[in-house]
Amino acid sequence: MTPEEFRHAGHELIDWIADYRSNLEQRPVRAQVEPGDIRRSFPDSAPATPLAPDQLLRELEQRVLPGITLVQHPMHYGWFPSNAALASVLGDIASSGLGALGISWESCPALTEVEEVVCDWMRQLTGLSENWEGCIQDTASTSCLTSMLLARERASDYAQNHGGLQGAGKPLVVYTTAEAHSSVIKAALLAGFGSDNLRMVAMDPETHSMRAESLAELVAKDIASGNIPAVVVASVGSTGVTAFDPVAEIAEITVKHDIWLHVDAAMAGSAMLLPECRHLWQGVEAADSISWNPHKWMGTILDCSLMYVRDVQHLVRVMSTNPSYLRSSVDDEVRQYRDWGIPLGRRFRALKLWYHLGIDGIESIRSRLRRDLENAGWFADTVASTEDWKVLVPVKLQTVCIRHEPPGIEGEALDRHTLAWVSAINQSGAAFMSPSMLNGRWMVRVSIGVEATTREHVEKLWTLIQQTVKKPIP
Amino acid sequence: MTPEEFRHAGHELIDWIADYRSNLEQRPVRAQVEPGDIRRSFPDSAPATPLAPDQLLRELEQRVLPGITLVQHPMHYGWFPSNAALASVLGDIASSGLGALGISWESCPALTEVEEVVCDWMRQLTGLSENWEGCIQDTASTSCLTSMLLARERASDYAQNHGGLQGAGKPLVVYTTAEAHSSVIKAALLAGFGSDNLRMVAMDPETHSMRAESLAELVAKDIASGNIPAVVVASVGSTGVTAFDPVAEIAEITVKHDIWLHVDAAMAGSAMLLPECRHLWQGVEAADSISWNPHKWMGTILDCSLMYVRDVQHLVRVMSTNPSYLRSSVDDEVRQYRDWGIPLGRRFRALKLWYHLGIDGIESIRSRLRRDLENAGWFADTVASTEDWKVLVPVKLQTVCIRHEPPGIEGEALDRHTLAWVSAINQSGAAFMSPSMLNGRWMVRVSIGVEATTREHVEKLWTLIQQTVKKPIP
Repeated sequence: MTPEEFRHAGHELIDWIADYRSNLEQRPVRAQVEPGDIRRSFPDSAPATPLAPDQLLRELEQRVLPGITLVQHPMHYGWFPSNAALASVLGDIASSGLGALGISWESCPALTEVEEVVCDWMRQLTGLSENWEGCIQDTASTSCLTSMLLARERASDYAQNHGGLQGAGKPLVVYTTAEAHSSVIKAALLAGFGSDNLRMVAMDPETHSMRAESLAELVAKDIASGNIPAVVVASVGSTGVTAFDPVAEIAEITVKHDIWLHVDAAMAGSAMLLPECRHLWQGVEAADSISWNPHKWMGTILDCSLMYVRDVQHLVRVMSTNPSYLRSSVDDEVRQYRDWGIPLGRRFRALKLWYHLGIDGIESIRSRLRRDLENAGWFADTVASTEDWKVLVPVKLQTVCIRHEPPGIEGEALDRHTLAWVSAINQSGAAFMSPSMLNGRWMVRVSIGVEATTREHVEKLWTLIQQTVKKPIP
Repeated sequence: MTPEEFRHAGHELIDWIADYRSNLEQRPVRAQVEPGDIRRSFPDSAPATPLAPDQLLRELEQRVLPGITLVQHPMHYGWFPSNAALASVLGDIASSGLGALGISWESCPALTEVEEVVCDWMRQLTGLSENWEGCIQDTASTSCLTSMLLARERASDYAQNHGGLQGAGKPLVVYTTAEAHSSVIKAALLAGFGSDNLRMVAMDPETHSMRAESLAELVAKDIASGNIPAVVVASVGSTGVTAFDPVAEIAEITVKHDIWLHVDAAMAGSAMLLPECRHLWQGVEAADSISWNPHKWMGTILDCSLMYVRDVQHLVRVMSTNPSYLRSSVDDEVRQYRDWGIPLGRRFRALKLWYHLGIDGIESIRSRLRRDLENAGWFADTVASTEDWKVLVPVKLQTVCIRHEPPGIEGEALDRHTLAWVSAINQSGAAFMSPSMLNGRWMVRVSIGVEATTREHVEKLWTLIQQTVKKPIP
């Protein structure tokens, strides 16, 4: 494809995207396809002859679009917000157009240095001290695994340079809670700790926060047994119920025993853009690593997950590679982001964050976050004050965990009722919410925070929910 | 940013990208900046007030562009080709515009199923059997780490579900060669094997291929010592000198001893689009995992690395997570790509591969690859037949390893001479090549394969090199 052909097709595509984003609200929120529908609509083999770009655009419209659940739809309340703010989309397009190759500073100095710049801007905007240095990872799962590896190597005195985790003597132990994101257990297993060495710390029954005194007990017990406490993962805004582990209390224990503390603020990091929310991760300065996702509530397009560490030297020592074909004369003066994570090559992700901050501006982003907090507060109050309805967990941010509990319906019947009404709404395409388990029973997470979601949309959702629970479920 | 503001700014950006790609050849290949230049050109803090999109575009032009090494420039011969074909850029833009969220099949059925489709198309186009199923990872480094984890868990009978690698009894061992990509050693260390359990197999002194008989000896020795051979990583087109390990001979050993065989064809996978090159990975069907990067020579924009496995059930067993907030009623009928790798969330990467294949067409891609092979053959023959010049390694694909060896210059003086002439060219911006080490001495890799590089450009490079080595180096 020549630049002129690209120019022509690019203009068409931009118009298509602008139309698509303008008309989202007319479409069903959830993809209205069955498993295999999309796959079967494609030919079995690659096209033998080239297609015109406008033909591909038609296929994108006809074959692909019906298979997309619209997470930017104002009636989307599922999972967590994933806004893909158009300013950040523009930055992402700039990144694609530049086609930069991030494998070393030399391969694209701007890619490295703009990433340094925006990570430092974000550090300031979330109130973190100058002790932290950051990079952009794809997701919080990857940051969590990376932090586990850093913890493992610190606790084992760099066992990777000897026998690794194999026959290394005293077992290294990982601590978190059952509310932690699934990626935490996954990371612990992938890092080689083994499930026997994974401790689920008790939680407060109301807030689902880690109980620091239970952590202290488990750590003491492990030390007495000859184990080495290696890492604690604290959730700051858990995925299930937006629980907040008490970072300051946990940090007292981790600092005392030289345990790595990773703060997983994947969701709630966005809230730290608001000074009034920062009490929710009080004590974070004593952690060893932090990750959070601008690609969630803040709304920078996926994939944009920030990871901060305090000890960069340790990070690089664990993660570095320095083959001759990547060496250059300036290696000692520059940051080599290949040594900050698992992949060698990286895209120019900093552009989407720069564009998002630059065009939308931090104050408009903050206003939107505050609007969402108010909407969530209104929704929670309204649900809680309605007969037969419960808000199951205190609402700290913008996700509200609810259940309709009509008299006489309990246990598995209640589960069936919950799944029935939420499925009816999700399948209709009128709105989308995520059912989730809490203490062994299904409930519904209503996660407010799509850019386009106004108070009217939240009111519309509440009306829709109330109408649906009254209907007989087929 | 509203859709209408996006539309306006998007059109400007598309024009800017088309102009940028049209005028690449007038710019210096390597970024002409010093460490810190770009960083210092940005303000210390995020902009307090929003900027207009056209202002950001001017800043992109003035601040960022000088810091980009132009890997699509026709005089770029560094590292490996990273073409970012404009057809794939268009697909990447479509992905950004759709803002899809890939965390489960339900969150975007099209994202999952189009990825299935294009991975299967690519399987067919590279001559792999139906025994393989694939996904798109960010880079070959990540695929390599994932394969190491799969190998580790198979060899340890799923130790992750017990004590992990800690105190697990017999040490698990990894085998590769010194020619393997730096990510292989990194993956082995991150996976927890430890450097003591990493064996560097001897290579053929001329071709730098792994010697299968040396592998057999090491494996036998490890078994005799009570160790468990867990994984062999075979390089199919190594980064340093494009060496090819003998996959069929290696597979005989791995099959016999139930050792995981990972084939790292990051670069040479593109060559497998050409039937006449497939002898270079003969025996690949007996491997357990394969990875290769369409984002290299084939030219799909970064990040697009294919990973194929034969035993999907094992893959999912090692990498899966299934929290309640991601469950849906169709879980058993669909592919959940979150269980195929480390990150939970994924972008809609399949679009760039679909667009690349769709618009450019496989036959035009194949023609270009063949053109590059011919150009590399011409360049190698020309260099080899010139006095005082050597082609240091037999040329199997499109990368030529050369050295100017004038009489009387040897050892460290030769290193200084090599680095002097290649640095002079790289710094000038007229062309770019990667110096690299071979047997402890510097040489220069000339990697041909940028989309815009014609025979005339290669001839121009050779003239430039010859002129440069004659000049007194300051």
